[in-house]
Amino acid sequence: MSGRLIIVGLGPGNPDQMTPEARAAIDASSDFFGYFPYVERLNLRTDQTAHASDNREELARAAAALDLALQGRNVCMVSGGDPGVFAMAAAVIEAIDRGKPEWKTVEMSVLPGITAMLAVAARVGAPLGHDFCAISLSDNLKPWGIIEKRLALAAQAGLVMAFYNPVSKARPWQLGRAFDILREHLSADVPVVFGRAAGRPDEIMLVKSLADARPEMADMATCVIVGTAETRIVERGTKPSLVYTPRFLKSETH
Amino acid sequence: MSGRLIIVGLGPGNPDQMTPEARAAIDASSDFFGYFPYVERLNLRTDQTAHASDNREELARAAAALDLALQGRNVCMVSGGDPGVFAMAAAVIEAIDRGKPEWKTVEMSVLPGITAMLAVAARVGAPLGHDFCAISLSDNLKPWGIIEKRLALAAQAGLVMAFYNPVSKARPWQLGRAFDILREHLSADVPVVFGRAAGRPDEIMLVKSLADARPEMADMATCVIVGTAETRIVERGTKPSLVYTPRFLKSETH
Repeated sequence: MSGRLIIVGLGPGNPDQMTPEARAAIDASSDFFGYFPYVERLNLRTDQTAHASDNREELARAAAALDLALQGRNVCMVSGGDPGVFAMAAAVIEAIDRGKPEWKTVEMSVLPGITAMLAVAARVGAPLGHDFCAISLSDNLKPWGIIEKRLALAAQAGLVMAFYNPVSKARPWQLGRAFDILREHLSADVPVVFGRAAGRPDEIMLVKSLADARPEMADMATCVIVGTAETRIVERGTKPSLVYTPRFLKSETH
Repeated sequence: MSGRLIIVGLGPGNPDQMTPEARAAIDASSDFFGYFPYVERLNLRTDQTAHASDNREELARAAAALDLALQGRNVCMVSGGDPGVFAMAAAVIEAIDRGKPEWKTVEMSVLPGITAMLAVAARVGAPLGHDFCAISLSDNLKPWGIIEKRLALAAQAGLVMAFYNPVSKARPWQLGRAFDILREHLSADVPVVFGRAAGRPDEIMLVKSLADARPEMADMATCVIVGTAETRIVERGTKPSLVYTPRFLKSETH
């Protein structure tokens, strides 16, 4: 008797931004794993069981979920945003790759979600309108030197950048250092968007220049988007300004 | 009397992957603009009007939509995937930026959607599990030389790459040239995913090595994902293989 494991993206937090297939997978599951704020968001029925856990316990969480699926349960692993972007899908598959051989027999699927950078971009316009990259600033997961190298190369490449995990209590200085590196490569007036809780009642969107961007403007729940030389801010009088990166790029600009 | 313009992401094509807020915006709109296959997908009511147009007419389409919103209509501009990723949001805001001053008074919002790379990644595992970039291979929108430079820098940075607009009838050679450039920087066994129509009945997912990747494996509707030196393929016997990029990166590998 074998159950299954579905890894579900909940989107940015607004229930109207969760896909119907994600909603259906939640309704059809018996057991729920994930970081506890995401599991709490689900409003589970009394016949559904929460197995919430703390952050930074991803591999143990994946192992427990796979074991329960092997026992025949309909298991759901939830991630905020999209499960494939700095989230649980890679952790579960890493467990399948390196863990118990029988985990390879578990029926498993991944359901995508609206990831933070898309939700934040939509609220301010279209800052990701041209080529872009997504970089996690967490040096829990990779050496800081590699992050610095990636920032410099992405700036040289003219890519818009979206930063995930920009700051935390344990990582207070990394975002400020990232801005310093970018100031060596990009001009002071490049727009920087600080997007927190996009689409939720406590949403905060800040648009600054790179010169004025400060790490205190972000917290754990913020996605930071740094534009390029082409990114523009459109003033609209009393309406909020729009930030966009044009689709066209002329050769003279590079 | 002023109407409004909502720019809506329809997701990859499976209705179960369209968000409820996108669905509600469509139901509440009177006039629809967009590339004709996307408008056809909507099954409009008899009191709703389609203004579909061909591809590569984005600015004219944006202008017509803004004019109609100014006349008091509830206008909806649709994009496949996410409207902020190589799609209509940047075109509309460019029109607002550079066009008629009164367009700045139009009530306008953007609703995000599941973009192709997230849908494709979910179907094969978690190839975007670590830092990644999204690059359009269309040299209608930028000089080919800039694309070559970006490919080389992204490979040096160790970013997973998702290619949008990889080929078309008018751009037959660009994807093959991109693979050639990447072979100069990445090893032959790096996984390459060709994902077409993710989540739809006609879905095709191919996983190849960079050595075996051929441009004929993609068409206009394909999103191509190229891994890094860390990206792994997990064989599972009779089940489809999984592709993932681990969350952790050790310093020795770079």
